[in-house]
Parts: sequence; C-alpha cells; structure tokens
Amino acid sequence: MELKRNVGYAAAKLVEDGNIVGLGTGSTTLYFLEKLGKRIIDEELEILGIPTSYQSFLLAKENGIPVTTLEEHSIDIAVDGADEVDSRLNLIKGGGAAHTMEKIVDSAADKFIVIVDDSKVVDKLGAFPVPVEVIPQACRTVSDHVKQFGGVPALRMGQRKGGPVITDNGNFVIDVKFESIEDPAYLEKELNYIPGVVENGIFFGVTDEVLVGSSEGIKSLKK
Amino acid sequence: MELKRNVGYAAAKLVEDGNIVGLGTGSTTLYFLEKLGKRIIDEELEILGIPTSYQSFLLAKENGIPVTTLEEHSIDIAVDGADEVDSRLNLIKGGGAAHTMEKIVDSAADKFIVIVDDSKVVDKLGAFPVPVEVIPQACRTVSDHVKQFGGVPALRMGQRKGGPVITDNGNFVIDVKFESIEDPAYLEKELNYIPGVVENGIFFGVTDEVLVGSSEGIKSLKK
Repeated sequence: MELKRNVGYAAAKLVEDGNIVGLGTGSTTLYFLEKLGKRIIDEELEILGIPTSYQSFLLAKENGIPVTTLEEHSIDIAVDGADEVDSRLNLIKGGGAAHTMEKIVDSAADKFIVIVDDSKVVDKLGAFPVPVEVIPQACRTVSDHVKQFGGVPALRMGQRKGGPVITDNGNFVIDVKFESIEDPAYLEKELNYIPGVVENGIFFGVTDEVLVGSSEGIKSLKK
Repeated sequence: MELKRNVGYAAAKLVEDGNIVGLGTGSTTLYFLEKLGKRIIDEELEILGIPTSYQSFLLAKENGIPVTTLEEHSIDIAVDGADEVDSRLNLIKGGGAAHTMEKIVDSAADKFIVIVDDSKVVDKLGAFPVPVEVIPQACRTVSDHVKQFGGVPALRMGQRKGGPVITDNGNFVIDVKFESIEDPAYLEKELNYIPGVVENGIFFGVTDEVLVGSSEGIKSLKK
C-alpha cells in the first residue's frame, strides 16, 4: 500500500501543465489519480485525462480530473500499473480485466510510464497467467487454441455476479497460464491472431519507463 | 448447501419429457441443472433448456442439457432462485446480476417455479437491496432518480475486475436499498420508467409456486 502510494504520487509529478494524460486502471494508479487531482486544484493545471476503464473514468470524476476521448485528443503521457514487468520493460497486464482499453491508450501515448511495487518485477514473464479478452461465443474455440501454444486456459469467474467476469467491453477473460514465456513478442501476436480474441495482456515494447516502489525508495528502469 | 440441493433436485423432478425449460441462474439452480442433466441421461428425456445467463448456459453445457433460444421456442416451465420471496410470492432477484434475462425467461414460462432455502422467505420485501441494471452512461442520473423513491443507491463493484461489475448485457448494477417496500408492483414499474434503467430485480406476480427447503423438508407455497 505504502509502496504503491509512493510510486503513484511520484508519477503524478511527471505530468506537465497542458498535458493530455492516459489514466490507467488498478490499485496503484488509484494513488496516481488522487495526486493528479490534487495537483490540478493546487497548481491550477490545465489537464485532460483519457480513462482506460469505467474504473478510471469514475475515479477521475471523483478526483476532479476532467476527461476527454482518444477521438478528440492525442496523449502526451500515460501512467498505468502492471501485473508483471520483465528486465526489458515488457509487461503482463489485465488482472483488472481492462487490458484492451489500456493497450489502446498506453500505446497511443508519446510517453508511457509504468508504476509498480517491486513484487511485480520479474526476470522473465509468465508466472502471472496472460489475460486474454475474448468474444463470449468464441470461449471454447479460443480455449482450445491456446493449448497449442502450451497454455492452460481458465475462464475468469465473477464474485459479485453469477458466472464469468464480463469486461467493460462486454466480453469474457480467459486467464492462460504458460510454463514460461520465452518470446513475448511472438506470443502476443499469435494470441491476437486467434479468431475471437479481442486483445491479450502481453505488452511488448510499449513501455518507456518503469517506476518501481521498494522499501529503499523509488527506482527508475529505462530501456 | 444441503437445503439448496434438496429443493434443486425436487424441482428437477417437475420437468416432463418434451418440455422446453427456462434455466435459472445462481447457487440453488446449480443443483437443479445437475439433477436435470442426470435425468436426461438416465431417463432419455427429450428436453431443451433456455438459459438466463452465461452462467446457466455454461452449466447447461457442463451437465449435458441441450439449449435453444426464446426466438425458436416457448417455455413450458422455468426454474429459478430468488434473493427474497414474500408471502404473496413476489420476489427480489438480481444478486447474481442476471435479473434482466431471468425476468424475460421466467415471465415467458407457462409455469414459473422458484426454489429457495428458508432464509430467503420474508414477510415483506426490502431487506435485500433491489438490483437495478442500468446503461453505464446513466449511472449518475439513475442514482439521483432512485433517491426520490427513498432508495439509497450503491454501484456494485467487481472483485475479479477493476471497477464496476458488468452484466452479461454490458451494463452496470446499482443496488438500491429501501427502508421498506410497501408496494412492490408500483416500485417495479416506477424504477423501470427511469431513463437508463434496463430492468430491476422486483418480480411482481410472476411466480406460480415456491419450493422452500428447510430442515423439516420441502414446503410448497402457492398463490
């Protein structure tokens, strides 16, 4: 909690007056949004946010961050969390089921900053299952398909609704566990090539900088 | 668990060969579907199910119940759970966020059987908040509206996704707590009249019979 707050706050200081800001989803970006909202009031900044989910849209509203859309604006800087970060700054995202819109927004940003605590940093991706958003009608065929890549699929079930988790886009999430991910760029492309897959949670080559919160302070990882 | 299993199994025995069956959602109907699937194999029944949710669709598949749609068939009998049942067999449903499709299917059935354990039986509806499915863009205006009827709205949040629970139809659920519900028929209509409301969880005058599981056995309530 403390580590997440520290990196969230640090990232908020990177935003400059006049920026269009991609607003990530999740428990770390929550602190980013809190601090960004505070800066907008205290420093009278002119900033517009572009949310990556209903969650970040509602939190933007709560924190007084005015929002806009990708149709209307380009993004100067996006700040988002991650479920895993490897040594080359590739990511697995989608624990919050928002990775489709996150990839759209984060990839569109001039600068994409990832904020995590040090528990998320790994040598090689793959301990975290890869979230794959799928069209509901393709659930069985996509599940069969990912096995060809050595994946073990599990349909993500909801807890405050009956049956599967439904994404903000009305789709399912299949969490696919791989023994190890040797080539994330290849796997990212192959998964998206399966008919019925909307987007998967591997983010290859998108990240510009990672801020890592640890008990020794904040470390910056750059390519 | 034991009580839910007992009523679920009892309801499965009410289904007759050749029936088109509405398949409810939730932890009690789970046992209904299990037993119905077993009867289809053991007794070689010709039965088609019409699911009320992705959950019941997937469970139908798991239990070997062939499915069809309301476009193709009318429903002879529907079996579904409830979150509250009053003495006149009116219901509150939607704890599983599936009440819109449930109301479509359950209302279309010649016979609608509700299965509950005795903890769900109340004198008057209203201890359970009324689930209201809303178009996401109408979240704030609907929340404001329900206050005029004495309701206290709370947007239902997900647990295995960031942000709000999304229904099978891609919408939000606002759980609205009322001090007490004196006139469920009136409230059901008024809530649905609010722009942005897709469907609410009050089921007035739809139920034909309630099977109640208790430690003394199964009791049948009829109008």
